[in-house]
Amino acid sequence: MSHATPDTATPGAISPGTTNRVHLDNGGRAPWHPLARQAFEQAVADGWADPRRLHAEGRRAARLLDGAREAVAAVLGARAQEVHFTPGHTASLHAAVASASAARRRAGSAILTSAVERSALLNAARVAGRQSTVPVDRLGRVDAEAMNAAVRVPGAALVALQHANGEVGTVQPVEAVHDAARAAGVPLLVDAGASVGHVAVPDTWDLLAADPADWGGPAGVGVLAVRQRVRTAPVGPEDEDPWAPGGVSVPLAFAAAVALQAVEADRVAQEARRRELVEHVRAQVSRIPDVEVVGDPDGRLPHVATFSFLYVDGEALVTELDRNGFAVGSGSACTASTLEPSHVLAAMGVLTHGNVRIALDRGTTADEVDRFCAVLPGAVARVREMLAVGGL
Amino acid sequence: MSHATPDTATPGAISPGTTNRVHLDNGGRAPWHPLARQAFEQAVADGWADPRRLHAEGRRAARLLDGAREAVAAVLGARAQEVHFTPGHTASLHAAVASASAARRRAGSAILTSAVERSALLNAARVAGRQSTVPVDRLGRVDAEAMNAAVRVPGAALVALQHANGEVGTVQPVEAVHDAARAAGVPLLVDAGASVGHVAVPDTWDLLAADPADWGGPAGVGVLAVRQRVRTAPVGPEDEDPWAPGGVSVPLAFAAAVALQAVEADRVAQEARRRELVEHVRAQVSRIPDVEVVGDPDGRLPHVATFSFLYVDGEALVTELDRNGFAVGSGSACTASTLEPSHVLAAMGVLTHGNVRIALDRGTTADEVDRFCAVLPGAVARVREMLAVGGL
Repeated sequence: MSHATPDTATPGAISPGTTNRVHLDNGGRAPWHPLARQAFEQAVADGWADPRRLHAEGRRAARLLDGAREAVAAVLGARAQEVHFTPGHTASLHAAVASASAARRRAGSAILTSAVERSALLNAARVAGRQSTVPVDRLGRVDAEAMNAAVRVPGAALVALQHANGEVGTVQPVEAVHDAARAAGVPLLVDAGASVGHVAVPDTWDLLAADPADWGGPAGVGVLAVRQRVRTAPVGPEDEDPWAPGGVSVPLAFAAAVALQAVEADRVAQEARRRELVEHVRAQVSRIPDVEVVGDPDGRLPHVATFSFLYVDGEALVTELDRNGFAVGSGSACTASTLEPSHVLAAMGVLTHGNVRIALDRGTTADEVDRFCAVLPGAVARVREMLAVGGL
Repeated sequence: MSHATPDTATPGAISPGTTNRVHLDNGGRAPWHPLARQAFEQAVADGWADPRRLHAEGRRAARLLDGAREAVAAVLGARAQEVHFTPGHTASLHAAVASASAARRRAGSAILTSAVERSALLNAARVAGRQSTVPVDRLGRVDAEAMNAAVRVPGAALVALQHANGEVGTVQPVEAVHDAARAAGVPLLVDAGASVGHVAVPDTWDLLAADPADWGGPAGVGVLAVRQRVRTAPVGPEDEDPWAPGGVSVPLAFAAAVALQAVEADRVAQEARRRELVEHVRAQVSRIPDVEVVGDPDGRLPHVATFSFLYVDGEALVTELDRNGFAVGSGSACTASTLEPSHVLAAMGVLTHGNVRIALDRGTTADEVDRFCAVLPGAVARVREMLAVGGL
């Protein structure tokens, strides 16, 4: 079995060469916030028991879980009992779409989404009802008028609109859409998986999904907030714990909440700092020949920047940058392994190939960003050269 | 927000009074093995990235995940590519039942289960097909002949039989049922969630679910092994990662694998040691008046003991023992919060109320067991007295 042994004794053997690496692929999966690691350790020691049990250890785990729920609720502008932990962001979106639309089957089966929602949400909508997609403009911003008109047509079970697009950074008009949805009596699901912890989140939602792994908390746990006024229907085989069948990991939920409190504590400062860095990158990159700097220049996430290069293969550029010590994302965040053309970029009508996305972590420095800006033009040129000589 | 702050600075404020506590409720949720904590820390540092990404950080996370898969496969007698990580044991059972039965819809819709399977499995079977339940005897052992006869009737999509019952400890005849299932061409799903890490697990299965939280690994991750020969059908909205939509937490999977290797390393010694302690408890408890010592005296898990007391309320007894420093389970492990009568005990035809279950951890000492045996008779007497005087 020795060949299959995860090597715990010598961590160094598993993680060589991290020195001087610049990791700019922090969207959806960021390094843990140090306080989250500390909180997790504490909760593993104190909150490992099943919080549904009656004994002292179970009650202590339940208290940790309640504290986590209250902390997240305070940030989201929700009541504690409206906040639920799930197995992850994908699970949150699946369950929210399925449950909220099933509860309104009598009103209709249409599920209205923007064209640039996360794949998990679009897939859930496709399965749960009659999916109806509202287009976006070239900046990735949904046509609020078209969405609001669609909401007013009878037969809508649910509207889903992301707070901001994690791939290109564009912020969506959720307030306007929520107004129209409320007037029509249709619940609005807001995917805030790319924005919570980075910008202020509006309270104009009926259901809201947020992603701890995106804000420096752990993967393996998600957050779904459901206003008490929203009707939901059971989905899946379990009546108990409908949002997390079998229960949730208390240490993960606790670490997620502590990380959220920690990033909220200096969010405004971090937002300004990272916005400045991103604007610098966008300006620098726009000087590279044959590039499209993607997404809304103003109404955008402070930490995300996306570019599409003509005459460049996205995978080759990611690999070339990786060789030079820079980790970046490419294509669609949801299908990074396959590098299929991103449905987001396609819906925006921008170049879908030769795409690179960076998402700055709270720890990303100006120096790292400068080094990236210095290396990128050469990397693009080399990949173009390889492509030109048929080397790819 | 201060009132909602999870208190990371002073862990002691959250976990008072753990001194001298004896925790005997380790079935399904045991304290983490120390090596699992160490492995988790390492993997948070080295494997926090998305393992589907192309860059060095992503590839390193993917390697940790592959190592975890190989380590679990070696213990289960499976190939690495047959082992999948899921969001948890309930998710494993739901997905296995739904997927394996959907793939055989042409053969039939009957899903055969024992009457004492976990609620999550019974619920999944109820939703996925035409559930058919095979009875158990008074020891909780399924009637293998009846199950095999049912398998031979055309129309069976899937048979599900636990390796051992986590509530009463009885080991099931999975080998015999697998022989009949193979002959009939029906896949056998084995729920080994209460046995892996405690006893040797047979390789007579087509799908097998195991629970890291039960063997000293983390909650929030599950294991589902599916033999390559078994046909499965996609369930849920996602084509990618069908067993863990959105992907799994690499640190959780890694910690689960390290914990499994650690407990396997001294499993035989721990099995003998805990079996002796459990036999001692069962003998001692049988001397208390009006008690039924539940489950198979011979073919049983080494660490689980269950008793039902006449003239006792289960919740009151759990609370009385908790007051005396002992944490135990009661009723059905799956519905401990509601203390509904256990469907397992009901199916066995034994007393469903006044029930107490203990599950010994690897760290449980003979002294702790002795203290439990010394305290239990008095606790039972006090609860009976309260009940008699109408104090409850």
